[in-house]
Amino acid sequence: MMKYPLTLQNFLFRAKELFGKKEIASREADGSIFRYNYSEFYNRVCKLANALEELGVKRGDRVGTFAWNTHRHLELYFAPPCMGAVYHTINLRLFPDQIAYIINHADDKVLFIDSDLIPLIEKIRDKIKVENFVIMGKEKSYDTKFDSYAYEELIAGKSASYDWPAIDEWDAAGTAYTSGTTGLPKGVEYTHRGLVLHSIVAALPDEMGLSEKDNVLHIVPMFHANAWSIPFAAAMVGAKQVFPGPQPTPEVLVDLMNSEQITFTAGVPTIWLMVYQYLKQNPDKKPKYLKEVISGGSAPPVALIKAFREEFGIEIIHAYGLTETTPLVTLNRPKSYLQLDDESYYELKTSQGLVAPLLEMKIVKEDGTEVARDGKEMGELVLKGPWIAKEYFKDPEKTKEKFTEDGYFRTEDIAVIDEEGYIKIVDRVKDVIKSGGEWISSVDLENALMAHPAVAEATVIGIEHPKWQERPLACVVLREGESVTKEELIEFLRPRFAKWWLPDDVVFIDEIPKTSVGKFDKKVLRDRFKNYYLR
Amino acid sequence: MMKYPLTLQNFLFRAKELFGKKEIASREADGSIFRYNYSEFYNRVCKLANALEELGVKRGDRVGTFAWNTHRHLELYFAPPCMGAVYHTINLRLFPDQIAYIINHADDKVLFIDSDLIPLIEKIRDKIKVENFVIMGKEKSYDTKFDSYAYEELIAGKSASYDWPAIDEWDAAGTAYTSGTTGLPKGVEYTHRGLVLHSIVAALPDEMGLSEKDNVLHIVPMFHANAWSIPFAAAMVGAKQVFPGPQPTPEVLVDLMNSEQITFTAGVPTIWLMVYQYLKQNPDKKPKYLKEVISGGSAPPVALIKAFREEFGIEIIHAYGLTETTPLVTLNRPKSYLQLDDESYYELKTSQGLVAPLLEMKIVKEDGTEVARDGKEMGELVLKGPWIAKEYFKDPEKTKEKFTEDGYFRTEDIAVIDEEGYIKIVDRVKDVIKSGGEWISSVDLENALMAHPAVAEATVIGIEHPKWQERPLACVVLREGESVTKEELIEFLRPRFAKWWLPDDVVFIDEIPKTSVGKFDKKVLRDRFKNYYLR
Repeated sequence: MMKYPLTLQNFLFRAKELFGKKEIASREADGSIFRYNYSEFYNRVCKLANALEELGVKRGDRVGTFAWNTHRHLELYFAPPCMGAVYHTINLRLFPDQIAYIINHADDKVLFIDSDLIPLIEKIRDKIKVENFVIMGKEKSYDTKFDSYAYEELIAGKSASYDWPAIDEWDAAGTAYTSGTTGLPKGVEYTHRGLVLHSIVAALPDEMGLSEKDNVLHIVPMFHANAWSIPFAAAMVGAKQVFPGPQPTPEVLVDLMNSEQITFTAGVPTIWLMVYQYLKQNPDKKPKYLKEVISGGSAPPVALIKAFREEFGIEIIHAYGLTETTPLVTLNRPKSYLQLDDESYYELKTSQGLVAPLLEMKIVKEDGTEVARDGKEMGELVLKGPWIAKEYFKDPEKTKEKFTEDGYFRTEDIAVIDEEGYIKIVDRVKDVIKSGGEWISSVDLENALMAHPAVAEATVIGIEHPKWQERPLACVVLREGESVTKEELIEFLRPRFAKWWLPDDVVFIDEIPKTSVGKFDKKVLRDRFKNYYLR
Repeated sequence: MMKYPLTLQNFLFRAKELFGKKEIASREADGSIFRYNYSEFYNRVCKLANALEELGVKRGDRVGTFAWNTHRHLELYFAPPCMGAVYHTINLRLFPDQIAYIINHADDKVLFIDSDLIPLIEKIRDKIKVENFVIMGKEKSYDTKFDSYAYEELIAGKSASYDWPAIDEWDAAGTAYTSGTTGLPKGVEYTHRGLVLHSIVAALPDEMGLSEKDNVLHIVPMFHANAWSIPFAAAMVGAKQVFPGPQPTPEVLVDLMNSEQITFTAGVPTIWLMVYQYLKQNPDKKPKYLKEVISGGSAPPVALIKAFREEFGIEIIHAYGLTETTPLVTLNRPKSYLQLDDESYYELKTSQGLVAPLLEMKIVKEDGTEVARDGKEMGELVLKGPWIAKEYFKDPEKTKEKFTEDGYFRTEDIAVIDEEGYIKIVDRVKDVIKSGGEWISSVDLENALMAHPAVAEATVIGIEHPKWQERPLACVVLREGESVTKEELIEFLRPRFAKWWLPDDVVFIDEIPKTSVGKFDKKVLRDRFKNYYLR
């Protein structure tokens, strides 16, 4: 009795057999739009698989991609896993040393590079053990300081059919590394089974909701957590896919939304903010076909959700996940029976939402018990399920740190859950302030502070305290030309928080240090103000 | 590294944890509506599991249900599989001997019976080896000629929590038997994995499309192929579920559609025909909330699809499947880019549609090669995939007959496929007429004949022929008071078919023999006219 496996081959074959005429459009580096369909896509995936085989790629080998969102990158999402190899997407935003580390740790056999990124790879060429380099773009050759193939030239003469092997659903299909804000990046393997299940669940009406009728614009970088599996889900349902290429500026994105009649897209809040600003300056370009967008990476601000809804008629839907979770964990759609006034509607919308089908979650306090579903009690969100990582790739030490003994992945996110099951992330484990046995959310305090008109940026850190273990210290950057006193800021916070939550002090600084991916680097500030109470 | 299993427990827990307040409504035998929610439902499922355990139900044991669509039946869809046992739904429409055979073959430990069905079971009580009987209904006791428990009494004192065991996804969760029009009924086992995957795929936007916002009316009998997995999918997404109970008359169904604001339902064409007739007589009762309905079991007639669309604004969506396929195989939504005039739209709508994600299909000719995608070449549809049966339960002989050596299930349906991938069933293997090495669809000829105003019913059978192997013979029942000659009928068919398709003869008969489930019993006619060419 043969057990029928869940593999990405099913999606590839389905796209070809049922949606061969549906379009894929991709913006090249020169601004031109390359168009083909799933039938031609399938032929090129076959050619690519033949080319990879000739380059010596074998089962289980990793194929690195250092690239923007293009149709070639889509081909690399399918050819390696469907031939039994593994795609490995590399985050363009990392430091060169991290990139070199990741490529070597993953043992990438071939590296596919978008042509404008050649200089970045030249910098680390001598440090990496890759056997073959392929430059992606429409040209037949590229000048590189290292030996390389050109993608179009490489696949040009190859056969447009491929003898796909039988694949086990537990085989790795993809790999990605966490951004590694602390320590070295950690690798995560995605199985065929996990990606297939994730894609199907992501396409459900109450999750992202993807249909053959949709025209999908890929804004989430394909080097971030499988682009939230949207390329796979879109192929499965036969949706049109549109790739913005190497210059995903607000103008390019908005123009594509209109010219390609985009009905579905997803991105981080920063993108939506940029799109908002662009649309305010270009009101005639308001996207006509877009009714909702998915927003992930961090919680979208209320003002942004409100502006999109009221000014453009576009609903921002927040989803939450991490590299280790493929990524979809929760998605926020208000339940049909909730009676919400404007204020509670928008408040609900910034929470992370309801956990997706097939996942299992707990929010656990320090003593290991679960929090009450009261929207108040805080704990760490831990997860298991078919697309939640069970280990870090070749890293037993980190695996031990980040996975519980009963098989849950530790998100290191501090969350609350309300009686309806909506989860809200209130802090990171390392940032939450532990004061006298209770927890204070640094994020809540920061958001409140940043709502003050004189404040440009603010962060709140826990400072070692002789009596209370830790106490909150606010670090505030003022807007140019504005002024406010410590006392005024504390008074501003007072109505919103319990007295023991209020920061002990406010320090005014010139800038908040940032990590490589643009997040507040609280570690630097914690070091700087470490001995605050001793001084 | 623990492999996270796909089990129905996930759906049960999700419904309780996220949708505890959502309603389940169920019409009792006395016409009253019982209402509770998923939270209370969960408690009763726990009570039922405790009761089953006390009755001695162990892992892998089968629990039979002989019942209508009620909330108690829903509880029986969850309690047995989530405790590691197996629900076994028994088709009420079978002959008593078949029912007894099925119950004994499945070795049911407990049998749950709706109170109005007691007389049916009394007839076979002495033939079946069931240990315990439970009568379902709101009363605390029922008079039966055999020892029995009453459902409400049985679960009343039990604990509302249950220590659910770990379950392997390959374990059986459910069982059903085919209606067995030829030979003995054959058993099919449904694994947790298969049901979970089927439910998720069925809920996709381009399949049935199920959301938390939906109010679901269960018209498909729960004793037919897991009620198309709609009870599971609805629990997973947290949709409201409505059960019409033991009198699913058109009036009851239509009243529930309006009073419960039904947005989703599914049933066989006969139901839609009855609903149509009822609505024509009661135009004020037109369902206000229903935009589409799923229709399966057989292809819905064009006239019905058209009438629902044009008169009620309700789209009939055809889906195809069998007991052995859980059942979803194909579902018909016209692709977004198809430019269809009215005629081609309705013609497309009666085809079985596109194969669902995760399934693999072939349409194979007698020589084992696949048919061309031209909508003309006929072959047998064979399938494999995560929810396609791989064998018959305890029946190696039938297994050998109905499964190919390369692991496909043989549907015994003759199909064509067009270039877009739409599948159309044109006949059954045993009914297709093999004339001179080519195949003639008996169904196409029948449909054409039945379009003649004088014809009430018609069937076309293959009759042994000395030269052509088989030739078509039309068996026609005239409408009362109408008359037509053989020559006129052949002339009526002539413009639509190749000359060699036309029946050699037409015989007029009083009635077409029917099987237990109401289908034409062509076997009887084939026997009757066996020596037609010899006479």
